[in-house]
Amino acid sequence: MQDMALTWRRQGQIVGLVPTMGFLHEGHLSLVRLARAQSKVVVLSLFVNPTQFGANEDLDRYPSNIERDLAYCEAEGVDVVFMPKADEVYAEDASVFVQEQKLSQGLCGMSRPIHFQGVLTVVAKLFNLCLPDLAVFGEKDAQQLRLIRRMVRDLNFPVEIISGPIVREEDGLAMSSRNSNLSEAERGEALVLRKSLLAIVDAKTFGERNVKRLRAMVEEFLREATLGTLDYLEFVDDETLEPVGHIEDRPVLVAMAVQFPSARLIDNIVLT
Amino acid sequence: MQDMALTWRRQGQIVGLVPTMGFLHEGHLSLVRLARAQSKVVVLSLFVNPTQFGANEDLDRYPSNIERDLAYCEAEGVDVVFMPKADEVYAEDASVFVQEQKLSQGLCGMSRPIHFQGVLTVVAKLFNLCLPDLAVFGEKDAQQLRLIRRMVRDLNFPVEIISGPIVREEDGLAMSSRNSNLSEAERGEALVLRKSLLAIVDAKTFGERNVKRLRAMVEEFLREATLGTLDYLEFVDDETLEPVGHIEDRPVLVAMAVQFPSARLIDNIVLT
Repeated sequence: MQDMALTWRRQGQIVGLVPTMGFLHEGHLSLVRLARAQSKVVVLSLFVNPTQFGANEDLDRYPSNIERDLAYCEAEGVDVVFMPKADEVYAEDASVFVQEQKLSQGLCGMSRPIHFQGVLTVVAKLFNLCLPDLAVFGEKDAQQLRLIRRMVRDLNFPVEIISGPIVREEDGLAMSSRNSNLSEAERGEALVLRKSLLAIVDAKTFGERNVKRLRAMVEEFLREATLGTLDYLEFVDDETLEPVGHIEDRPVLVAMAVQFPSARLIDNIVLT
Repeated sequence: MQDMALTWRRQGQIVGLVPTMGFLHEGHLSLVRLARAQSKVVVLSLFVNPTQFGANEDLDRYPSNIERDLAYCEAEGVDVVFMPKADEVYAEDASVFVQEQKLSQGLCGMSRPIHFQGVLTVVAKLFNLCLPDLAVFGEKDAQQLRLIRRMVRDLNFPVEIISGPIVREEDGLAMSSRNSNLSEAERGEALVLRKSLLAIVDAKTFGERNVKRLRAMVEEFLREATLGTLDYLEFVDDETLEPVGHIEDRPVLVAMAVQFPSARLIDNIVLT
């Protein structure tokens, strides 16, 4: 992969990278199109990265359909699908990791303490292996996106980070490979994430800017509407990810995660 | 710097990087020559990296002579001296760091707990800013060299690491910018590092392979020969940096640090 990337670089070709864990859906494909529009060469990496899964998480149950993924990639004009095996990516005695020490502490970092070290390390590796000029990430993984931008800034990677908006199912559920793990009943309840976020937008439109009250409203709604448990619902400054108690003029990221028996789902919205 | 480096890369020029903290001596210049021999463009970075100094260390007393450094660089045919300011290198709210979790624990890592996080982070940044094909490091900083090789392996940097042998003063003292901070009396005693290492080589030649006895021999010598305090004397596997109790056939790195009132000095030798 790196040899190929070095050749492209010598030829002055613009390379766009779309890192994925596979089981592609329209969300991923929208990122491919963003890369395609700005790159001569589009690389899609397909790697279920073990180091970003905690011991009790769903690494073993992460969905996979390589054949379908490859068909999608071909249809979208992806030039290279980079699909390494875990033992090719990580040496058995791997000991160097990329850590973020501020933005990674809250939100998903609370319940997934090693997650972002795994994400940043593998993204740094993918950047060095694929040497992209630009890389595209989805806005559904809001904290991940901000951490990757922070890594690029703090480690000076020569990579432009482009983000693609959340792509949703017709009923509003944010697309996620993990949706396929939901039971039919869970799939119905999964809409509570989007509904909660839209209720917050509505309440804000009607003048409610107190985070405690907005949170209480959502918590009450969730108690009625789902058996899933709220992992977190946070209102944070969109840039620093510091919690805010009151919604002022600065953009506020509202992010949430709900744990269903078969999958943990996330969604978010930025209040501007 | 990065724009320049991207241009070189598009032109297919081989770039060699020599990272330094300045106050250059013959040791650094030997590294420049190694870079020069294999590169079209030689970049020497000159940056006293604050994040690799602990609170009670000698950041404020680190010697400097920019004018002389630049004259040396010109004489050696360095193409670019990269000399950023600290606030250009680190954002005020920098929060992403490169950490090594095994090889960095012993040796200098024991008394300098944040040192190698600072070193690896700044070297990762320099790699991304200068985009070298190869980078040259001195063997005096034995643990640093091994950690950088490990980082290149574990984060897949497309950079070849070349090492240059320790360059010594006529009397055997390993060249170091910090030598200039020594008093005349300390300068005399500073030879104890080299003498200790040579005594170990001699003893091994005569069949002594027990690390406990070799260490006792050196400790006794140091008690007589210097007022400096032994920070560490370690016998470790040259690859894993795991302590060894007995010198077998695998290469053993013998590394030591002695704290003098005006400077902490290090030296090492590999027993093969």
